[in-house]
Amino acid sequence: MHRLYYSPGACSLAVRIVLEEIGQPYETEIRSAKNGEGTSTADYLALNPRGRVPALTGVSGGSGGAPDLLTESVAILLFLAGSYPEAKLVPADAAAEARCLEWLSWISVDLHGVGYSQLWRPHRFVPDPTLHEAVKGKGLENIRAAYDHIDRILSDGRDWAVPARYTVVDAYLSVFWLWGRRIGLDMEAGWPNWARLMTKVLARPAVRRAISLEAMG
Amino acid sequence: MHRLYYSPGACSLAVRIVLEEIGQPYETEIRSAKNGEGTSTADYLALNPRGRVPALTGVSGGSGGAPDLLTESVAILLFLAGSYPEAKLVPADAAAEARCLEWLSWISVDLHGVGYSQLWRPHRFVPDPTLHEAVKGKGLENIRAAYDHIDRILSDGRDWAVPARYTVVDAYLSVFWLWGRRIGLDMEAGWPNWARLMTKVLARPAVRRAISLEAMG
Repeated sequence: MHRLYYSPGACSLAVRIVLEEIGQPYETEIRSAKNGEGTSTADYLALNPRGRVPALTGVSGGSGGAPDLLTESVAILLFLAGSYPEAKLVPADAAAEARCLEWLSWISVDLHGVGYSQLWRPHRFVPDPTLHEAVKGKGLENIRAAYDHIDRILSDGRDWAVPARYTVVDAYLSVFWLWGRRIGLDMEAGWPNWARLMTKVLARPAVRRAISLEAMG
Repeated sequence: MHRLYYSPGACSLAVRIVLEEIGQPYETEIRSAKNGEGTSTADYLALNPRGRVPALTGVSGGSGGAPDLLTESVAILLFLAGSYPEAKLVPADAAAEARCLEWLSWISVDLHGVGYSQLWRPHRFVPDPTLHEAVKGKGLENIRAAYDHIDRILSDGRDWAVPARYTVVDAYLSVFWLWGRRIGLDMEAGWPNWARLMTKVLARPAVRRAISLEAMG
């Protein structure tokens, strides 16, 4: 059975959504990423030297930490989708699968690794705290630019991020939709095509379960 | 036939290495990312609205730009590896394939999207040019931390980044090895386990061809 290390409100939610979509039993362990409370501890760093969530047990070949721990949202999402093909969370077609990875990759870099990291973890970009406001301001600008790009792609009226079907990309996008709300952006007004997609995604039973399970700790 | 849009010295080199490993004919088109000379032009932005390299033609399902253009190094590398299984550039085993994606994902975020972007494109992080030196300094620190992590993983004596075989990860790692040299780091002294791997990777005929073809323009 897989165990998911997660932090409430972090992008580990996307993995939990996918685990709920798959419907097989899994365990969870909370590791708060807030100020590294649960992720910078000696025991966690022994498992996962990079001290991040999500991380998933039960995948052989781990490096530098627990031998069965897989890290990186993008890798975990596609590993789970590929391991449970009956859940149909990734297209079988090679080009459409590449489109999933294209979405996951640029979002993980530009929106999460740069934009939101600037906003929430400015010390990763400049050590001097007096410069953090400048980093955060540009972070918000980068977030808005990425949101605009998401909305532009979805503006062709497609049903899902990768047109053929609901995939792990839609689950991943829901994290950034909720984060936008959390930082006070008017998501529906600003990004209407994305809003149309999210109405469907957030109504899915698995997505609702994942969100409420996480909220209950 | 695929066409690769590339910029000399950019991470598009990893894709070219993989195309050379595959050995099928392909075309290239130079699009210099230096100050966006070739990537911020109207014609390129019409093809690829995010204005980056690498990008690869011949993959259906493109969004917001050319209908057959695939972007994102990570997506292109795994698409090519999956499309030409006889080249054996990705493991057939699901867990080992996830390890490839784990490597590609964290490197693309932490080392490229954050570290090197800070060093070479500090304006993405703060608009004020007087703050750029602070961003670049922290970028170098982030690069060194990522290099340390690469070396630590490789310190168990494995033959390749993903132990079973040479994969797209080794090709991708060669870009960051060459970048380290370019910025004046003493790579062999600083990261000896990585150096041991790179001796083998840089000796591969396909890698040598890709590097020399790119140098010849």
